[in-house]
Amino acid sequence: MPEEFVVTPWEVRGQIDYDRLITEFGTERITSELLERLQRDAGELHPMLRRGIVYSHRDLNWILDEYEKGHPFALYTGRGPSSGIHVGHMLPWFFTKWLQERFRATLYFQITDDEKYLFRDFEELGEATKVGYENVLDIIAMGFDPKRTKIFLDTEYIHHLYPIAVEAAKRITFSTTQAVFGFENANNIGEIFYTSLQAAPAFLPSVDAGREIPVLIPCGIDQDPHFRIARDVAPRLGYPKPALIHNKLLPSLLGPGGKMSASVPESGIFTTDSLALAKRKVLNAFTGGRATVEEQRRLGANPYICSIFANYEFIFEPDDGHLAEVERTCKSGERLCGDCKLELWGKVESFLRRHQEARERAKARIEKFILRD
Amino acid sequence: MPEEFVVTPWEVRGQIDYDRLITEFGTERITSELLERLQRDAGELHPMLRRGIVYSHRDLNWILDEYEKGHPFALYTGRGPSSGIHVGHMLPWFFTKWLQERFRATLYFQITDDEKYLFRDFEELGEATKVGYENVLDIIAMGFDPKRTKIFLDTEYIHHLYPIAVEAAKRITFSTTQAVFGFENANNIGEIFYTSLQAAPAFLPSVDAGREIPVLIPCGIDQDPHFRIARDVAPRLGYPKPALIHNKLLPSLLGPGGKMSASVPESGIFTTDSLALAKRKVLNAFTGGRATVEEQRRLGANPYICSIFANYEFIFEPDDGHLAEVERTCKSGERLCGDCKLELWGKVESFLRRHQEARERAKARIEKFILRD
Repeated sequence: MPEEFVVTPWEVRGQIDYDRLITEFGTERITSELLERLQRDAGELHPMLRRGIVYSHRDLNWILDEYEKGHPFALYTGRGPSSGIHVGHMLPWFFTKWLQERFRATLYFQITDDEKYLFRDFEELGEATKVGYENVLDIIAMGFDPKRTKIFLDTEYIHHLYPIAVEAAKRITFSTTQAVFGFENANNIGEIFYTSLQAAPAFLPSVDAGREIPVLIPCGIDQDPHFRIARDVAPRLGYPKPALIHNKLLPSLLGPGGKMSASVPESGIFTTDSLALAKRKVLNAFTGGRATVEEQRRLGANPYICSIFANYEFIFEPDDGHLAEVERTCKSGERLCGDCKLELWGKVESFLRRHQEARERAKARIEKFILRD
Repeated sequence: MPEEFVVTPWEVRGQIDYDRLITEFGTERITSELLERLQRDAGELHPMLRRGIVYSHRDLNWILDEYEKGHPFALYTGRGPSSGIHVGHMLPWFFTKWLQERFRATLYFQITDDEKYLFRDFEELGEATKVGYENVLDIIAMGFDPKRTKIFLDTEYIHHLYPIAVEAAKRITFSTTQAVFGFENANNIGEIFYTSLQAAPAFLPSVDAGREIPVLIPCGIDQDPHFRIARDVAPRLGYPKPALIHNKLLPSLLGPGGKMSASVPESGIFTTDSLALAKRKVLNAFTGGRATVEEQRRLGANPYICSIFANYEFIFEPDDGHLAEVERTCKSGERLCGDCKLELWGKVESFLRRHQEARERAKARIEKFILRD
């Protein structure tokens, strides 16, 4: 019997059944045929594609049709700046960076400071904007191509976004937001309007170019509801429907039943964590191990519920051969959790050192990336 | 038994009972004590005040308290650009101009092109913006002081307005918009959000100055619902509540049961009407006259249902003595409707000639008035 779970743009709870989400949201699974096509067009497959972490889509075949006809697409993703960045937030960004490189795509990166204020994360709008700029450092530190990356905060780029948002808003009723997001009469009118702001960047490349530009949105599956609305209004506004490609959510370090979450600091590795703190989080993480060493040697452990194995699989072990070896030795009992954690920590440590250095350098590079009105 | 009537920001219908509106909206009548105070502070009373056309308010005593303490107030009014301007639209503008001169007040003039698009007056947002600029010519032609007048279109000044609107929106629920405007689940999410944009300029003077600036909003009583919401959220945002001063609505030239309306061209004199067309409208207007000349000479006519008399009273006859003479001779039967119309036409004609010339000159003066992001 499946456990109950909740996946909305603002709340993820319980053990997520990703197959059921495909059915409930009405998206399509990324098939082996589609993977072959991606391999052909991109020249390789990102590990998240090979491993089914990026697993669902809308209209990806259409985007590739256009690409193969010589019509390049733009990429659009975003960040709701409620806190510092943990590696779970970065999951779609790693993948987006790969798409940018492989398809030479211009990336529009929306920072939704208005959203995070409206949904009560902040008392002052300016606090959300400030956290937004902190997050921008992490985005730049990812290594996106400055010539092909346009980052903007809603409150700073609103002059460009608002007319598009108003066009969308005219075609979205309160009933629709009730059905899609579960809004009620007690929701504030900024929350209700907000989805039209998240739709706007999907149409911005076409507005900028003055002609139809296909847009692909890589995002966590939890953000899909917004773009169902954006896709619904697109043809009525004369814009192409944005295509989507969805990733699963990185599990919490604290164990099953939740994604890595900014409101639970111990649940994930944050980019600004000290090395000592990050190491402690890794060493204290929930695993699929047994109660005793003896038992684990005898029965083996379970990598499929293990937050450490998820970190290997989702991010930190690009080599499929070694990943398989980790999986095998975990299950056979050859590998003990302490050693496995230390091995992962080695990878996390070098990632964190590099990222933190890049993040420092990003402070001087912000103006190469930011769009303002 | 009073006829049924409807007064909302988007619809005015039926014979308006202005006394009942004071009760229903919860505003205050402008008393003779308040008129004396205005006379003292302004040095005179505008005819619309003397005649009870500007008849209702919220917190006007507080605004005068502040003024007398040496704290000047700002003025804020607006225009929803759905069409050309008729003299009914100009009613609050005449009065606002007088307030600006008498109280040396800075005026913020909002052109709500987004509103008019969202509420279905236009298929394209750009059409509303274009009509907005046509309307700005009429505003400038009124003779507002360019050093003290800031005109802005929502879509062009949104970078300044949006953060304030979002602050307000966070504190306004959908339930509130249902209660105040009668919105339903089928309303679009732009309509629902819009009231926060109409609230924003009430707080803009304080934001601009970095300290609390009292704001007085002269407007038709039909716009009061928006500002009930603005006043409700103001203290929670740390801004002073805007005060209001309300005028009655100029009746239609076609007779009782409606205000002058842009959707019924024959109902009012438009600033861009040719003199011939305007004259025809005046001569064809509904009056309080009798069926025959003989009957009118014998029984007199009724100025209180007469659209021509309303035009004398509301706008075109500043001299109370002559207005009283028009009223008396109408009621006594000395004055016949044809003559009365021709006399009014003389006043309307010279107003139109002057306004149309000033409107032409305004085309070169737009940049003295417009604020943009």
